[in-house]
Amino acid sequence: MKLEDLIDQIKNKDSFLCIGLDTDINKIPECLLNEDDPIFSFNKSIIDHTNKYCVAYKINTAFYESLGAKGWVSMKKTVDYINNRFPKIFTIADAKRGDIGNTSKMYAQSFFVEMNFDSVTINPYMGSDSVKPFLEFENKISILLGLTSNTGANDIQLKTSNNDDFIFMEMIKSSKEWGDKNHMMYVVGATKPKYIERIRSVIPDHFLLMPGVGAQGGDLDEICKYALNDKIGIIVNSSRSIIYASNDEKFALAAEDAAKILQKKMKEILSSKKYNS
Amino acid sequence: MKLEDLIDQIKNKDSFLCIGLDTDINKIPECLLNEDDPIFSFNKSIIDHTNKYCVAYKINTAFYESLGAKGWVSMKKTVDYINNRFPKIFTIADAKRGDIGNTSKMYAQSFFVEMNFDSVTINPYMGSDSVKPFLEFENKISILLGLTSNTGANDIQLKTSNNDDFIFMEMIKSSKEWGDKNHMMYVVGATKPKYIERIRSVIPDHFLLMPGVGAQGGDLDEICKYALNDKIGIIVNSSRSIIYASNDEKFALAAEDAAKILQKKMKEILSSKKYNS
Repeated sequence: MKLEDLIDQIKNKDSFLCIGLDTDINKIPECLLNEDDPIFSFNKSIIDHTNKYCVAYKINTAFYESLGAKGWVSMKKTVDYINNRFPKIFTIADAKRGDIGNTSKMYAQSFFVEMNFDSVTINPYMGSDSVKPFLEFENKISILLGLTSNTGANDIQLKTSNNDDFIFMEMIKSSKEWGDKNHMMYVVGATKPKYIERIRSVIPDHFLLMPGVGAQGGDLDEICKYALNDKIGIIVNSSRSIIYASNDEKFALAAEDAAKILQKKMKEILSSKKYNS
Repeated sequence: MKLEDLIDQIKNKDSFLCIGLDTDINKIPECLLNEDDPIFSFNKSIIDHTNKYCVAYKINTAFYESLGAKGWVSMKKTVDYINNRFPKIFTIADAKRGDIGNTSKMYAQSFFVEMNFDSVTINPYMGSDSVKPFLEFENKISILLGLTSNTGANDIQLKTSNNDDFIFMEMIKSSKEWGDKNHMMYVVGATKPKYIERIRSVIPDHFLLMPGVGAQGGDLDEICKYALNDKIGIIVNSSRSIIYASNDEKFALAAEDAAKILQKKMKEILSSKKYNS
């Protein structure tokens, strides 16, 4: 998918919502556990009920890998289902991969070709040759860690370099030169709004994937104040507070309601900024 | 596996060799391509011919994931084969995972429980809460990126902090406090011997996993000069120069010869240091 197609979708749906499919076999409703593939059945129901309100699904690979090869089958079925039924929706493999060049090339092959995701999240700590193999794929987007939403971000990312800037800013400043902005995004945690202005001063045009709204406590209005740009420029992810909105047989309807509420807030924000004109 | 068991094995085999199973369907001998599972067949032959000379096998997850769920099946069969046939050999999932706490917990579940590896490599850039879930498993070892062997290490890891130290050193100094040295190792690229003395001044006792000997150009004598400690303290990985030593039907014998040559050098080094006394 091209970035322009994602932007069109955002405008058409009045939404920049991404739903995180962090699907955990221990958290899905019991009524699904007798299905052949409970993980896929859960995802399918969630997707069927929420696709009108979101522009992207983010699949957290860890949850699938925890089940081994079987989990990878559920992951593949989920991406295929989205690609076939809702081809305009942007798919993200939240995999945080990155390794030496010949190995990153294999990860790119995995997520872009074999699994056919539109994008993959990348941990850029190993540097340019660990990221560039991902950037060689047309119509695919590489999403680099900018500043993560967890408390552990303090341990390295928020330390200071000898340029008197944060380490995560050094990472962004270096990595933005590795490819063009139509093929790169950055992960910026929604729990850390005070850093967004600084980030936008260096990458005003890049799209940001912002996790951390919902269970992790990020505030939508607050992040929008600093992160929106003239092409909207953000997608905001919510996982647990949508997909686990309820744990009974009406889980998909509860997820739909939760997604609808967030989309409505997003519509209001977009209207107030007059992006729809 | 406990670290002590690995040390015993090193002493018994006069070897600190780790063989990297970076098994690429496009590089294995043609004679294997008609097998049911060419990747596993290749690995099995390599393992059968090299297990006497090495103390560890490192499975690079990217190469398996590039084949999707099928690759994960080959990976599982490979670990199971090692665990069943050669239970003293240390197994490493070279996966470079790391994410927010609840997600890292899932990765730990995947590699330590579902796949039953002894250890996994971790990218610690996201900080303590991304690493600690791995450290909660008994008899499992977490191997954190220290300084990687690729040129991209210059982009972030070798930049300088406001403490006038390298970023990778800040990472090592922070992360060594997150767990005890019996459950943690560090990846330190064999291509960067000049930094090893500095690393050893901060983590004299931790085991180091050192990739980069062979195809990447690292020199065994040079790294041993700085990295060995009184418990040996290193395992040195070679992947391509062993497993692809030959591309014809005698590939496993060629791999055996290549492994034997490295093990012989290691034995000489260990003898000269009198570790065997």
